[in-house]
This record gives sequence, C-alpha cells and structure tokens, in this order.
Amino acid sequence: MRVFSDPASVAVVGASADPAKWGYWLARGALRGSHRRKVHLVSRSGAVVDGVRAVPGLRALAEPPELAVLCTPAAALPALVDEALELGVKGFVGITAGLPPAEEAELAERVRRAGARLIGPNCLGIYDASAALELAWGTFSPGALGIVSQSGQLGLELAGLAGEAGIGVSRFVSVGNQADVTAVEVLDDLAGHAATRVVVVYLESFGDGRALVRTLAALRSAGKPVIVLTVGASDAGRAAARSHTGSLTAGTAVVEAACRAAGAILTRTPAQAVDLAQLLLDAPAPVGRRVAVVGDSGGQGALAADLLSAHGLEVPALEAAAPRVAALLPPGAAVRNPIDLAGAGERDLSTYAKLVGVLLDSGEVDSVLLTGYFGSYGADAPSLLARELAVVDTLGTLVRERGRTVVVHSMCRDSAAVRALREHNVPTYATIDQAVGSLGLATELASRPVAVPAAVPAAPRTVAPGYLGARALFEWYGVPYPRAVAVSGEAAEVAGPYVLKAGWLAHKTESGGVAVGLRGPDQVGAALAGMRERLGAGEYVLEEMDTRAGIVELIAGGRRDPSFGPVVMVGAGGTLSELYEDVVVALAPVDEEQALAMLRRLRAYPLLRGWRGAPPVDEVAAARVVVAVSRVIAEQEHVAECEINPLRAGPDGVLAVDALVVIR
Amino acid sequence: MRVFSDPASVAVVGASADPAKWGYWLARGALRGSHRRKVHLVSRSGAVVDGVRAVPGLRALAEPPELAVLCTPAAALPALVDEALELGVKGFVGITAGLPPAEEAELAERVRRAGARLIGPNCLGIYDASAALELAWGTFSPGALGIVSQSGQLGLELAGLAGEAGIGVSRFVSVGNQADVTAVEVLDDLAGHAATRVVVVYLESFGDGRALVRTLAALRSAGKPVIVLTVGASDAGRAAARSHTGSLTAGTAVVEAACRAAGAILTRTPAQAVDLAQLLLDAPAPVGRRVAVVGDSGGQGALAADLLSAHGLEVPALEAAAPRVAALLPPGAAVRNPIDLAGAGERDLSTYAKLVGVLLDSGEVDSVLLTGYFGSYGADAPSLLARELAVVDTLGTLVRERGRTVVVHSMCRDSAAVRALREHNVPTYATIDQAVGSLGLATELASRPVAVPAAVPAAPRTVAPGYLGARALFEWYGVPYPRAVAVSGEAAEVAGPYVLKAGWLAHKTESGGVAVGLRGPDQVGAALAGMRERLGAGEYVLEEMDTRAGIVELIAGGRRDPSFGPVVMVGAGGTLSELYEDVVVALAPVDEEQALAMLRRLRAYPLLRGWRGAPPVDEVAAARVVVAVSRVIAEQEHVAECEINPLRAGPDGVLAVDALVVIR
Repeated sequence: MRVFSDPASVAVVGASADPAKWGYWLARGALRGSHRRKVHLVSRSGAVVDGVRAVPGLRALAEPPELAVLCTPAAALPALVDEALELGVKGFVGITAGLPPAEEAELAERVRRAGARLIGPNCLGIYDASAALELAWGTFSPGALGIVSQSGQLGLELAGLAGEAGIGVSRFVSVGNQADVTAVEVLDDLAGHAATRVVVVYLESFGDGRALVRTLAALRSAGKPVIVLTVGASDAGRAAARSHTGSLTAGTAVVEAACRAAGAILTRTPAQAVDLAQLLLDAPAPVGRRVAVVGDSGGQGALAADLLSAHGLEVPALEAAAPRVAALLPPGAAVRNPIDLAGAGERDLSTYAKLVGVLLDSGEVDSVLLTGYFGSYGADAPSLLARELAVVDTLGTLVRERGRTVVVHSMCRDSAAVRALREHNVPTYATIDQAVGSLGLATELASRPVAVPAAVPAAPRTVAPGYLGARALFEWYGVPYPRAVAVSGEAAEVAGPYVLKAGWLAHKTESGGVAVGLRGPDQVGAALAGMRERLGAGEYVLEEMDTRAGIVELIAGGRRDPSFGPVVMVGAGGTLSELYEDVVVALAPVDEEQALAMLRRLRAYPLLRGWRGAPPVDEVAAARVVVAVSRVIAEQEHVAECEINPLRAGPDGVLAVDALVVIR
Repeated sequence: MRVFSDPASVAVVGASADPAKWGYWLARGALRGSHRRKVHLVSRSGAVVDGVRAVPGLRALAEPPELAVLCTPAAALPALVDEALELGVKGFVGITAGLPPAEEAELAERVRRAGARLIGPNCLGIYDASAALELAWGTFSPGALGIVSQSGQLGLELAGLAGEAGIGVSRFVSVGNQADVTAVEVLDDLAGHAATRVVVVYLESFGDGRALVRTLAALRSAGKPVIVLTVGASDAGRAAARSHTGSLTAGTAVVEAACRAAGAILTRTPAQAVDLAQLLLDAPAPVGRRVAVVGDSGGQGALAADLLSAHGLEVPALEAAAPRVAALLPPGAAVRNPIDLAGAGERDLSTYAKLVGVLLDSGEVDSVLLTGYFGSYGADAPSLLARELAVVDTLGTLVRERGRTVVVHSMCRDSAAVRALREHNVPTYATIDQAVGSLGLATELASRPVAVPAAVPAAPRTVAPGYLGARALFEWYGVPYPRAVAVSGEAAEVAGPYVLKAGWLAHKTESGGVAVGLRGPDQVGAALAGMRERLGAGEYVLEEMDTRAGIVELIAGGRRDPSFGPVVMVGAGGTLSELYEDVVVALAPVDEEQALAMLRRLRAYPLLRGWRGAPPVDEVAAARVVVAVSRVIAEQEHVAECEINPLRAGPDGVLAVDALVVIR
C-alpha cells in the first residue's frame, strides 16, 4: 500500500485557511512534505495556506493526485470520490464522518472495483515520519513507534504521549470505519516498515480475529513487539464501544487470550502502553522475573520492592552476590535486595555502575531497577555532571554487553543524565509506578512464546441429545466419566453409591434434577419416582458416584467467539471461578503443555499442588481434559458451547461428572 | 514546637561552600530566610556561602541561635549538642547519620532534660513555606501540602512531585530516627498549621499506632485529609524496612485498617499520593460513586468507563437526564454514559459546560469526568482560547455552586486552559490513569467516616486450656456453639450425629483429631478408641454436628499488633480466605454496624446474600460473632491471638465449630 506510505502526489480536498478547522491542519501538514511530493490544495473557497492557493476542484489540476485526503461534508463525498476515481486517483484518506453505513459500503465497493483503496472514512488521518507524509490532525514527533487506532483521538493521545516520552512516532494510521482498508492490513504493512520497531494498536472490534492474531504474531516474529489496547472490560465500556463504531467489543478475556497466542500484550491505558513501548525500544528484553533493586534510600528501595511483587516480579534475597555488593558499600548498608547505597553514591558516583555490574554478573537476578536520586546529581550540582555522565556511559556498556535490562526511576524528570540514560538503552522514568509497571509488562511479554493455534479440520460428530449424548462426545475425546446408564424403572447394574440425573436438563442441580448418594435399588427407585413426579418424563441417568477424597473441582468449557473463533476456558470449580473470576482463557485448540500452563495460571493452582499437606492431584489428567474440550470446540463446528462442570480432579486421576453441549 | 516552625534565629553547623555537599544546600536554604530571622553559618573551614562567612564554632556567636541544624560527622555530634545546650539552644535538626543507637538515645535524653527538642538525627531537614524556613536538602515550591516522612528522600520525592503538579509544599519534616520528636508530634502540629490543607505521611514504623490513629483522625476532623504511604507489602519490602531504621514494618493490612479507622487513606506510591492530593486540594469531596464520563472520542470515553469500573466506581446509564443530554448533541451521539460529544465541542465549545451542568443537576451521578481534547483547543488554535477559558470559568462556577467533583483528563499536559482549570477547582491530569485513580481514592476517602475505636477497660477472664476452655470464653461473649461435652468412655447425651474432637490440639483436623458424622454410642466409642490409640490421652470432646444445609463458612479472628494493638479479622472460610486473600481487618473492638460493613467488603459477600438462588444467611448473627471476637482481643489483654475457624453461617443463624485462644 505504497499509496498510503509514500505517495508521489497528494491533494487535500476541503483545505481551509482557518486554524480552528481540520482542513487547515491537513493542508499545513501535507505542505510540509512538499520537498518530497507534489501537494495540491482543493477548496471551493480558494483558501490560501502557507502561501499555497487552493484550486476549486480536482479537475482543475493538471494531473490527478495519487492520493486524495477528503475533508468535506458527508453529502458531497460519494460524488467527489467518483470524480476522483474517474480521474485516476489511487488512494483516499476519508476524514469525513457521517455517511450512512449502506452508502459507505457501496462507496468502498466502487473504490475497490476501480483498483483504488480507501482508509476510513471517519478517520483522523495518516502520518509517516520517514516519508514526510503528514495527513492528520495533531502534532507528531518522528520516532520508532507505529500507531494503528480504531479511535482517531485515542491514537492521537498515544502519539502525544510518545512525543513527550521522547520515543516519537514512525507511522500513524487512524483506520476509522475500515470500510475498505482494515486494521489488519495496516498492521501487516508495518512488518516491512523499517522505521517501526514497536507497534501500539487500539481496537474496539476485531473482525477476523484469527487473521489479526496471525498478523500480530508475524510482527512479533519480525522483532516488532505489539502492545494492544481495547475497551469492553466494563458494561459501560461495552455500551460505548457499540455506539462508537457499530461493532461489538469482544470481551477482554478473549482479547487477552488472543494477545497471548500472538505473543503480544494487552495494556489498560495509553500511558501504560507508551511507557512500555519506551522500555521495549530502549532496552534488551527481560530474560526472567528476578529483579535487583538498587536505591540510595531505604524507603524508596522498599517501596519499589513492594511494587515489583505486586506486579508479579520477584525480588530475591541475594546469596553469593551479597558479599560482593557489601564490598562496595559502607558497613550496615542493606546488601541482600533491595540494596541501599547508604551514602556510597555521594562518596563515589561510580559505585552505581559497579553495583549494577556485580548484579548483572551474579546470575542471581535477571534485571536491575535503580530508584531514587540518580539522574539528579549533575542537575543539582553541575560539578558532578561529568562524573554522572561517565556512570551513564558505563551503565550503557554493561547493558549492551550483558544483554540485560536495567531500568531507572529518577526523581529528576528531565536532565542531561536522564536523557543520556535513555540514549544508552536504559529506559528512565519519572515515577516508580511507570518503571515497575513497564518492567512487569515487558517481562511478561518476553516470557510469551508465539503460539498461534493451528487451524484444525472440521471432524463433525453427531451428538445425541441430553446428558448421555454430551458425555459420549466428551468421552470420544478421551474425557473420563463414571459408568452410567439410562434407567427406566429399575436400578441398573453399575456399582453404588449412585447419582440419579434428569439427563435432558441443562441446569440439573438448580432444577432439582440430581439426587446423590443413593444406595441399592430401593433408594434409586424412590428417587426416580419422586423426580418423575416433579420433572415428568425424560431420559433419567444413573451414574456411579465419585466418592474419592482429596478432590479439587474444576470447570472446563469451550465457546465460539464471534471474532476469535473457538476458545477454551478452565477455572477453579464451583463458586471460586465466578466469585473470584479465577478462570484462564485460551484460543482453541491447545496442546497438553499449553493446558498445563493454563492450570498453572489459576490462582487456585496451589489447591492442585496439594493444599495444606493434601496430596497433589493428577494435573496431567486435568490438562488432558482441557485439551479435549478445546478440541471439541475447535473441531465440532456445530457446537456453540460445551462445558464440563464440575471436573473432579483427584490424586489418582480425574472424573467429569457433568456434560453440556449446546448445538448452534 | 515553634522552634521548628518559625525560629527567631538559626545556625547551620557544618556549612560548606561546595555545591556538591549538604552543608552548602542547608546554608543556602537557611540564608533565604535572612529577611525573617538571624542566620549564622558555622564551619571550621570558614566557608563563605552567598557572601556570608561561617564562624568557627557556636561559641563564636554573640548570642546563641534558637535552632541549630547539625550537619557534622557523627563522632562530633554529642559534644556539639552538649555545647549548644549549655549555650541555650532550644531546638536541633540532626542531619548527621551513623550515631550508634545507644548514644543516640542518650543524646536525645540530654536534649529533653535541658528543655530542648531534637528532630532526627539521620533526617533530611525541615521546610516551612510561610515562615521562609528552608533547612533541608532539595528544592521546594511553596504550597498547601504538608509532608512528614520517615525516609528523607521519599519525602523529597513527594515534594518534587508536588512542585511539578503545581500544588507545592506548606511544610516538610523529615523525621529521621525520631530519637526525640516523633512523627505523631509533627503531625499533631499540622492540625494548627494554617497553610497546610492536605497531609502526606510516609512511615515505616508506627510506634504507638493508636496515638497515630487519633492524630490522623484529628487532622481529618480539622478538614485536612491525610494520605498515608508505607512499605511492607512484600517480604522484600519488609526486609528493607528493617534494615532502614531498625524498626519493624507493620503489615499493610493493619495499616490499612488503621487508616480506615482514622478516616485517612493508604496509597501505594508517591505519584498516586500527589495526584490524589491535587484532587483533595482543588475539588469538593466526591459525594458518591456514580460518575458521568464526558468525552469527545468514543474510544477515550469507553476506556475511561472501563477504568472507572476497575477502580470501584460506577458509570450508570443515564435515565431522565439522557434526553436533556441528547438535546445538546448531534443525532446518534452516545448520550447514556459514557457521553460522546460527537463533534459538538468543535461546533460550540460551550457544549462542554452545558453538558456538565445538566449532569451535575441530574441527580443521577455524583461526579463528572471529562476526558480527551478539552484543554488543547486554545493551545492548538489560539483563536479558540478565549472561548475555551470562558468554558473553564463556567465549569468553575458550576463546581463551586453545586459542590460537586469535576475531574479532567486533558491530552494537553500544560496549557492556559489546563492551568485555569486547576485554578477553578477542577483538578486536571495528563493521563486518564491519574484522573481515574485519584477520583477513585478521593471517593473512597470521602466515604470513610472517622471511627476510632474507643479504648476499652480490661476485663480479664480465666481461660481453661483446650477446646472447651476457648469455647467457653467465646460463649461468654455470646458466640453460639453446638452442645458439647468432655467424654471419657461413653457417648454422652447430646443429640447425634456427633463430632469427636481431640480438644487439646490447636490444629485438630491436620492432626487427625476430628471424627465427624458419628451416630450412636458404638461409632463414638470406636472413634474414641482409635483416636486415643493414635493421639494418646487428653480431653476428648463430643459435639453435636452442624448438619444444616445452605451453610457459608467464615473465619473470624483477633490478634494483637505490636503497634496498633488489638485487631479483628473476618474472612471467607476455608481455602478462600488464604488462596484469594479474601479477608478484612479492622482495629478492635468493632460494633455491629462496623462488623456488617466488614462482611460487605468481603469479595465472598455475595455468598452470604444467597448465591445462585440459595437463601441468604443470617448476616447479623455473623456480624455479632465478629463483634464478640473483637471484644475478646480488646478486653482480654492476656490473649495474644484468638480464632473461630470455621464459623458456619446459615439462614437460621450461625454456629462456631472451632475455637482457638493463644495466651501470651
């Protein structure tokens, strides 16, 4: 899509001389690329911007522009595009909003038929730093961050924050309504865009989610990590997303699963995304979760350690390295982690670099976080600047040679030393919140392998109705169930104690369709009679009751997401999964290793490992059930939802004691 | 302590001409108050700072200073203080670190005996803006925030952030080792310090925690909200705190409970604290959790709504106000909440103020959050500035007249409009993270009444050893237990089924000291024989088994915190409280209303209200047990810990089925 990255000529249709109008910003931005391409302004009013006078229409130009930016009222848009297509324009950026959806779709179709492409409409424009292409509202600093956004203004916010952070923007595309060019296409393009080293994408709807996952995975594999923003975590957020673009917002749990599969990462806010981007651009990727904290204040060091723990990182007590740390510090200084310089920095600034060197070489930590005054020495006492910059130099060399992450929180927001740190691959932040938050996210991202589930061929199987039919499907995939039979009037020949189930009910327990602990034909008969009286006729099932001790109940299920397709979920059973939202979601299918990793991410995982001296349950058997459920939802295209709740996991294996399959 | 807030004369002992030395900063700062008091410099080297030459010793001064700042080597400190006391110096600020603890205590004692006071040692100094008193390392902007910090540098970080946020510092006290003057005394003093309107305090140790709670409560009652920072949430944090001041860090759950009782609030980082302080200084306190989101971008509005939900705030769909909102916006704009201006702002800037007016008058929300471009109009298009400032003016008037909170997230970090917003009682932030985080904390703080537990008279009762003894104590406080008797050889005459317990064991279940579901003398006899064989002789107890259905298990306990005294805890029972850290802690004793509020703060609270159609349990009965446990720990001073686990709560009341009392 070279027409959008570096067109030979551009026309801004709807140019304006009023600095409060978009037509002015677009014209002025386009003209800044005049040294590289022909720039034309079009406006009925004959506006003059930066000394360039607009022509009244595209036909007034000697030759048609390759790319036209359209910033006119919606009513005029279709005719304008048709005229431009006739003239041979190859690309459109539609800023204009308010075209009825049907007209918009027809317009896009005409553009495509003519062999042209359209970004938007209802977008805020595009920007490419290396091509001096500036066709957007807002102000951009050139840099290395690619921004693709379904909300133009949220994209601008990202660009503004990237500018303030000093990382700048390589390319910005506000995709608007995606009537023709989609976010996925724009992202695909970034894989080959040399200036872009990290990507942030904001999406509210996901279209073909699996295609998006493949694109994000390709970017990651090309060495360009992707940070994803979305909305929909709250009902209020969901409502707004609907009204914003008319497309549903996928639940963030599924988006989170998609990011994990793609080796991308979800952040909650633009500021978090840009802070993380700074670390990803500046520093080597963290190789593990163990962090050494170096501070020149015990308070700041302790606070940083608390925050690191809260972000899932570890602050291990140093062992072998402790004496080497102590050798650099005054007696009584904290040397185990967090490390307190206790005045050693004031006595000899090079202590900072020596400490970091010892820590990076110790093998006991993966990253180093420096927190406190460093970065301020030269700013407060100019005589110290040269020495401070020399320390920065050494830190930079250490980072490059060891390939390890060093992150700084400096009490000085901006100084020569702070700027030098950033240039020396040491990301530096004004708050500990930013430093720790970014290190946490970068560590999580680095730990994620790209694991896009392969498309699986459909292998449809007929599913008989009711509990026995659902059970049979799961059993075909290897899920173990207790022995069971349909009963008419007599207790069957399975071993007791029994559970009697009204097999055709989806929510048996809530409807009084389950009787447990039945022993012998008499009890079964009585329970069956009672249930028949209450619930009427249907397929009653008698099942052996799982009476094993030391059971942990799980829930495993699959559903078909409208964007991302089949997903599999595992959770702590019963109330835990709902009350504490203790569930893990992944794109389906998953293999055994992935299923085990899902189990390990449950907060209830310690229960599986043997809680308070109980024997551990058979994790592998539980993981195999998750694999089976993921294959059911992935391979059985007629299945909308499927669920095993509960799955009873014990030391000697698992037993599923319910089954639900919803056919589309 | 006027000697520390506005002394008539000051001497800086250890003044230096080297800008890289503390003695330079202290001297220069002190001299900035020369128009208000006599300032002397003392230094053996005869240093000259800002044209003032140091004298060689305190005796060289014509009259002794009222206050002496000591910045000399530790070894020289005791003699120096003794000399100063002899001369009549009334106050000391000890910057010097490294005095052995015993010498430090003796020195403080001599100071007190002489009728003088000492701040520190091992502190970073003090600052008072209204008294032009600047006796600290670092740079301060005058303002309204009082800062008291046990870590000097963390205090400086707070001061720096407050300066950047434009709120500035009224008084700063680095309390250091608190050898004489304590943080509580300094905080007490702030109640009467007119310039201080909000207080941030960082503490690692809490000394007499109850005194601190009373002080914080008094500040809150004086209209000065207090924001608390501490460390110790992680083991690494705790280790660091120990090595920092030699005092233990209290667990943050207890600090959180103390803050709640005092009507104060705990934040995690200096940046969060300062952001919150800005809101508390600028805006009326939020009166409830319902927030309207107004944005000029659907994406930003949705993202803000998600974030508000994540911070415990509500974004209710507007009902009666929706048509009035719609009347201000173009057709199709989102009007229910979040509200999307959909271009209405560009067409008429006053729409922003009109919308906020409609929302504040609607009665459907308590606060308004504005997110997006507002604050940038005039910065990007100067012709719009006057109109933007007029909108700010109207917003300010609305806030003042309605007494409601309006918070702004502006994509513009700094502009005339942003500065004007802050001046007009509308706190304005550069990121949505800061805006929502601060609104969430301020709303939580405003919802907290001051509720300092009254000191209760000790009412000691003898506690017999074992389960029956512990039960008896709880029963005396009204906790209901099943009937139980000590058994020798025969099943007693309580009704079955029975539970047999090895009453002298603290952890009965783990030791095999509990047998449940026993029916009739034979089963009891057999269980007793088996248990005797395994566990030997002791007081075996036979208890009626609680076989009620619809039970929710809770845990209630009390312990004596070394700083904050008796605390009471309630949690979801069994694995939930530990695995999901679902516990609520309060200072003891609590009354029934407070105990109910504790239960409602459990994430497991929906279980008590009737989960999935189950009948609700008797909450009040559960709360009364929490009250009883809180009274046990508060009134029985010989009890170190006490616990009921589990407490079985059902629709018809509660039954405690275990009891543990640990005597000191």
